[in-house]
Amino acid sequence: MMINKAVKPIQVGVLGFGGLGQAAAKILATKQEMNLVAAADHQGYIYDPAGLNIDAAISTYRDRNTVGYSPNYGVLSSNSIQDVIDNAVVDGYFLALPNLPNTFMAEVAQQFIKSGWQGVLVDALKRTSAVEQLLELQSNLAKAGITYLTGCGATPGLLTAAAVVAAQSYAEIHSVKITFGVGIANWEAYRATIREDIAHMPGYDVEQARAMSDAEVATLLDKTDGIISLENMEHADDIMLELAGVCDRDRVTVGGVVDTRNPKKPLSTNVKVTGRTFEGKISTHTFTLGDETSMAANVCGPAFGYLKAGMALNRRGITGLFTAAEIMPQFVK
Amino acid sequence: MMINKAVKPIQVGVLGFGGLGQAAAKILATKQEMNLVAAADHQGYIYDPAGLNIDAAISTYRDRNTVGYSPNYGVLSSNSIQDVIDNAVVDGYFLALPNLPNTFMAEVAQQFIKSGWQGVLVDALKRTSAVEQLLELQSNLAKAGITYLTGCGATPGLLTAAAVVAAQSYAEIHSVKITFGVGIANWEAYRATIREDIAHMPGYDVEQARAMSDAEVATLLDKTDGIISLENMEHADDIMLELAGVCDRDRVTVGGVVDTRNPKKPLSTNVKVTGRTFEGKISTHTFTLGDETSMAANVCGPAFGYLKAGMALNRRGITGLFTAAEIMPQFVK
Repeated sequence: MMINKAVKPIQVGVLGFGGLGQAAAKILATKQEMNLVAAADHQGYIYDPAGLNIDAAISTYRDRNTVGYSPNYGVLSSNSIQDVIDNAVVDGYFLALPNLPNTFMAEVAQQFIKSGWQGVLVDALKRTSAVEQLLELQSNLAKAGITYLTGCGATPGLLTAAAVVAAQSYAEIHSVKITFGVGIANWEAYRATIREDIAHMPGYDVEQARAMSDAEVATLLDKTDGIISLENMEHADDIMLELAGVCDRDRVTVGGVVDTRNPKKPLSTNVKVTGRTFEGKISTHTFTLGDETSMAANVCGPAFGYLKAGMALNRRGITGLFTAAEIMPQFVK
Repeated sequence: MMINKAVKPIQVGVLGFGGLGQAAAKILATKQEMNLVAAADHQGYIYDPAGLNIDAAISTYRDRNTVGYSPNYGVLSSNSIQDVIDNAVVDGYFLALPNLPNTFMAEVAQQFIKSGWQGVLVDALKRTSAVEQLLELQSNLAKAGITYLTGCGATPGLLTAAAVVAAQSYAEIHSVKITFGVGIANWEAYRATIREDIAHMPGYDVEQARAMSDAEVATLLDKTDGIISLENMEHADDIMLELAGVCDRDRVTVGGVVDTRNPKKPLSTNVKVTGRTFEGKISTHTFTLGDETSMAANVCGPAFGYLKAGMALNRRGITGLFTAAEIMPQFVK
């Protein structure tokens, strides 16, 4: 665990090939320690044990809406996730899938459990209720030989882990307050993510947001000058920090501002951890992300850091469900 | 690992009972999950399997310079560490010992290895060279059944872990810059720690600082108005981040300002992690500690968070040497 000697690269698959999945693929293109060998979207998949031609996969998806049309290794399939599980030799998958409907990720986890596949799964889930569904699969994942790390994106994920580290100075945690700023120049590249955000707005739920056409999304954003403001969001940081023993979930709040028309963030994303020290002092530690880092960098980077850490656990026979608040992510070269 | 059910408290020992050891004892007095049963200083030790009377131990040490004079369970000994290892039933020790001379912590680790004791050891070491000595004991610690977590104080420790989390957003890390501010009203309560700081000043080394009388320390501090300014310190954050694969050690710098006459910190302690994202952007994440948190809170809190995490590893049979940069500390209630 301590000294990372040169070993065979981790064979990685990415499920979902929208904005997040493509960003994940671009990150993997730069890594020596990981090799992207499989990708799937809702109409097809591609598997090449030598490693995907990532530029070709991205341009194929952009032109034809599925990697299934990729030259040489593309396969069209209406059952692409099951097909890739059955056909690809993969150590770990990043589930870059929008969790729409809200039961989808748990269903995918069950597909993996039933298939007999063993390895590491990492998601960048957002909602508390989605993590609760996965918690019910804890013992089945463990028995199946799967090490599943949930909530491993930016928030929950990067900021939740920072909150756990910060909490160490305190005898008691009074509040964990996460405030994110997201700026994207072109929301059409993140269609699913934007709908997940809209689902958190007053008057919307997951199903309504999912059913919106692009024109309806555009009309909504015209009314708000492209700004989505969110308070008291259902974010799994709360259950993750509760499970990690840091504080009750009602002490954790998540809010943010998404500017869909400007790559500059409307505010610096941060987490503030307030507590009381053993000496009776009330204080706040603050972890602030650099404004120049994109959502894609802050989600996909941590996801692969957790995937690498998950591989170390899996090789030691440590399986089951873990959250980003329990495991130190590893830096991937 | 995931759900922390009520179990028997972890039986904890503290080696060293100066300012840091006493603060550690006060923190443990508030914890349900840990029970302080043993403490040792250079003239004696105390072991009570039912849990120490912490107030009595502290007042005994203050009055008579050793816990060996504590009523009922105190034992005077010139071989106190070996005696406590041999006589106390302890799950994990916090080594709150000043590492003077610089080989002392590794010698203590070897005492534990030779004794046949199994469990968790946690230190709050500062220097790179001290961690290098422990690295040589890696396989012996593993064989002995000891899970040793090194560098688990504030820096290295809390800030190193925050740096690993922060690094996840980046494809490449350009610099990790740790700057600490420490304010203490009364340096005489931290005699050993102050000498460790002085050893980092230009013109001083570890042996010289250790040999200074209290009067000589006071004279030095009179010349600087009580301020100790430190740059490019030898701090083990560098080797820990290198071992964790985050960056080469020469990209890590540690400096700070210690005000020995004012409990207010002269600046807010922080770590800045600068890197390049996969999209080619240069940015900096910043983790800043609240000014109201003391050195004792920021060192001892993390140390026990790592001790708890170390217990989970040890119970799974995972032994050997780990650093604070590899393991997520757990919150201790």
